[in-house]
Amino acid sequence: MNEKIKIIDKGGVTSAQGYKAAGVTAGLKRSGKADMALIVSENEAEFAGAFTTCVFKSAPVLVCEKRVKQGGKIKAVIINSGNANACTGAKGFESAEKMCSLTAEALKISENSVLPASTGRIGVQMPMDKIANGIAKASTAIKSDGGAEAALAIMTTDTVPKEAAASFEINGKKVTVGGMVKGAGMIAPKVKTAELHATMLGFITTDAAIDRKLLYKFLSNTVEESFNKVNVDGDMSTNDTVILMANGASGVEIKENTPEAVLFAAALDYVTTSLAKSMVMDGEGVTKFVTLEITNAASKNDAILCARAISNSLLCKTAWFGGDPNWGRAMAAAGYSGASFDPDKVDMHYDDKIVVKNGMDAGTPEKELAEVMKNRSFTIKVNLNCGTASYTMWTNDISYDYVKINAEYYT
Amino acid sequence: MNEKIKIIDKGGVTSAQGYKAAGVTAGLKRSGKADMALIVSENEAEFAGAFTTCVFKSAPVLVCEKRVKQGGKIKAVIINSGNANACTGAKGFESAEKMCSLTAEALKISENSVLPASTGRIGVQMPMDKIANGIAKASTAIKSDGGAEAALAIMTTDTVPKEAAASFEINGKKVTVGGMVKGAGMIAPKVKTAELHATMLGFITTDAAIDRKLLYKFLSNTVEESFNKVNVDGDMSTNDTVILMANGASGVEIKENTPEAVLFAAALDYVTTSLAKSMVMDGEGVTKFVTLEITNAASKNDAILCARAISNSLLCKTAWFGGDPNWGRAMAAAGYSGASFDPDKVDMHYDDKIVVKNGMDAGTPEKELAEVMKNRSFTIKVNLNCGTASYTMWTNDISYDYVKINAEYYT
Repeated sequence: MNEKIKIIDKGGVTSAQGYKAAGVTAGLKRSGKADMALIVSENEAEFAGAFTTCVFKSAPVLVCEKRVKQGGKIKAVIINSGNANACTGAKGFESAEKMCSLTAEALKISENSVLPASTGRIGVQMPMDKIANGIAKASTAIKSDGGAEAALAIMTTDTVPKEAAASFEINGKKVTVGGMVKGAGMIAPKVKTAELHATMLGFITTDAAIDRKLLYKFLSNTVEESFNKVNVDGDMSTNDTVILMANGASGVEIKENTPEAVLFAAALDYVTTSLAKSMVMDGEGVTKFVTLEITNAASKNDAILCARAISNSLLCKTAWFGGDPNWGRAMAAAGYSGASFDPDKVDMHYDDKIVVKNGMDAGTPEKELAEVMKNRSFTIKVNLNCGTASYTMWTNDISYDYVKINAEYYT
Repeated sequence: MNEKIKIIDKGGVTSAQGYKAAGVTAGLKRSGKADMALIVSENEAEFAGAFTTCVFKSAPVLVCEKRVKQGGKIKAVIINSGNANACTGAKGFESAEKMCSLTAEALKISENSVLPASTGRIGVQMPMDKIANGIAKASTAIKSDGGAEAALAIMTTDTVPKEAAASFEINGKKVTVGGMVKGAGMIAPKVKTAELHATMLGFITTDAAIDRKLLYKFLSNTVEESFNKVNVDGDMSTNDTVILMANGASGVEIKENTPEAVLFAAALDYVTTSLAKSMVMDGEGVTKFVTLEITNAASKNDAILCARAISNSLLCKTAWFGGDPNWGRAMAAAGYSGASFDPDKVDMHYDDKIVVKNGMDAGTPEKELAEVMKNRSFTIKVNLNCGTASYTMWTNDISYDYVKINAEYYT
C-alpha cells in the first residue's frame, strides 16, 4: 500500500471530519438488538451510489435512485436492518420516503437530502410506528464517535461489525476516508463497472471535497477492485447499496489526475478492500477465506469466468470446509467456466505448494496440501499459461453452519 | 403419457432383447462395494453419445469421442466407479484404451466396438491391475438379467441404484427401452441441445433398429427434456456421458416421422425423465424435490434463466431444507437472473397456494405455505405474466448432509 496512507485503528464512518452517527434499537429485530443507524454530515455532502441491478429493487434503492436523478447533495443516510422493504409495492415505496421525511423533520433538513437503506427479510411491509420511534431515538443519539454503534446496528446475520478507515495528509491538511459494511449472506459479485451485486450495504464517508463526476469515478473503480471481487454464496440481493459521501470538511479538494487523487484512491481502496475481505471472512458460517488468483489467462474475461466458476462451486466450497485437497473439483469448475484454455497447460498451487502441473497431479503428497488447507486463509493459484490476463477473487467455504443459518433465518 | 407405453417394473439396461450386463467388484472403491459394470449387446449396436463440454474431458470421454468419429457400431460398454480417470494426461488416455482392449479380448470382439466410462475422483491414475481383474470378472459374470447389478456398480455417492424401462408394441412386435444412471453430486444442466452438463453417467439400451442420424436426434431431444432440466448443485463434471445403444434385436426398425417414431420417443422420454427425476431425488443429502415451473415468460431463454437462477440459489435451497416459505429469496433470484420482466406483474404459487400477487405478498398465511413445504416434493410456480414461453426444471434442497458428504468425500 502507498506509504503515505495511514490506517486508522477502529476507524469507521465518523472518522472523517464533520460526520456524526448513531445506532439504536427501533424494535424491528426479534432479538431486540440495535437495528437502526443514522449517518449525518454537518455540511451538505456530494454523494455517489452503486445499487443492485436485480429486477426487484427494494423501495429504499428506488428512493436512492430518485435522489441520484434529482442531482442534489445529501446530509443524512437512514438505515434499518430487520426488514428489507423489498417486494412491498407502492406502500413500501411510501414507507421508504416516509423514513426520509421523518429523518428530515427530526434533523430539520430537507427530505431530499436524506438517503434510505434497508436490509432484512423481503416481502414484509415496514412497521412504520417502530421506524418512527427509531428515527426519533437515532436523531438525538448521533455523536461524532458514533460510527461503531452504527456499524453494529446495520448487522443482520453478521457476527462482527465491519469498519475501516484511513487518512493521508496534503499540505498539512488531513483527509480521511472511513466506512462500514454489512454483509454475511446473499453475496455475489457482478463484474460490471459501477454495478454492484453483493448482498451488502456499504457506507463510506470522506471529508475531502470531490465533485460528483469524479466521486462516481472513484466509487466505480474502487467497487470493481473490492466488493465486486467477493463471492460468498453466489446470491445477490434486492437491496445492495454502496454510498460514498464527500462533505469537504477537511478543506481539501481532490481534482482528477493529481497526486492527491492518487492518494485518495489509495485510501479509498484500502477502506473498501478491507471491508470486502472482512465481509468474506464474516460470511455466514465461514471457516475458510480463500483467495483465488487466476493468472496468464487469454483475456481478463476468461480469468473472471474461471474465478467465478470456482468461487461458485459448491463442491469446491465443501471440499475447502472439509480440508480436502480435492483439486479435481477446482479443475472441473475452471473447465466448465466457459474460459478458453488448453487443459494440458494448466498449473495450480495451494499457497506455494504445486498441486497440478500441465493439467495433471504434480505429485505433491496430499498431506502437504492438507496442511495448507488447515489454515483459516489460503490462496489457490490457477495458472492457465495461455496469455497475460489475470484476476483475483475472495471467497470462502460452505459449512454446516451456512446451511443452518439460512435454513433457520428469520430476523 | 402415451397410453401405448407400458412401464416395466424394475426394468433397466437388460430389459431390451439381446443385452447382457454385470456388476462386479474390481477393488477401486475403498468400501469394497461393486465398482465395475459391463453392458454387452449380442448384435452390433448403433449408438449415440452426449458428453461433457468441460474443457477437462476425462480420458474415457476422449476415447468415446474417438469412437464417435470412427463411425463404427459397438457391442460393449465398460464402466468403472471409484476413479474418474480425468486430469490424468496421456497415461490416463492409454488406461482408458486399455480398458477397451482388455474388454474386447475377454469378449472376443474388436476394441473399437467397446466404449469406456468412468466416475469417481479426478486426478488419480487408474490402477490397471485392479481394472484388468475387474474386466475378467465382469466378462464372465454378464447375464441377461444383470441390469440391476450393473446399476449398483456405477454408483458413487448415490444411495440407491437408478433404473427405468418401458416398452410398446408395433404389429405384434415388442420394442423395449431401458436405462440406468448414476448421479448424486456435480449435477447441473446446460441447456444446449445434445450437450450434456450433469455429473452423471447414463446408459440407455433399446432393441429397436435405428440409424445413427435418427438415434442422435432422439438422444438430443430426450436429453433436452430430461437430464438438462436437472440441477442438483450447479457443478458439472469432466466425465458426463450418456450413451444410447440400439441393437435391432426386436426386429423393428424405427424411421423418422412415423407413428413408431412417436412411440419410441415417448418410451425413451419416459425412461430418461424417470432417471433424471430419480437423480434429483437421490442427490447428495437431498430431502426435498422441487419442481420449478416458470410460465408466461417473454422468451424461452428468459424462462430458462429464471429457472436456473432459482435452482442455483443457495439461499433458496437452504430455505427449502429448513421448510421456510421465504419467497423473497426466489424473487431475488428471478430478479438477478438476467431475465426481462416487470417485477410488479409477477405471481408465485407453492403448489396451489398463492404466495405472491403482482410482485407482493399475496397474504396467504405463512403456516399454510409452510405446510406445502413439509412435503418431500412440491412445485414452485413463477408466472412472469409478460409472454407465452415456459420452462420447467427439477431441483432440490441443500442440507447438512450435502455439506457432510462433500466435505468428507473420498471414494
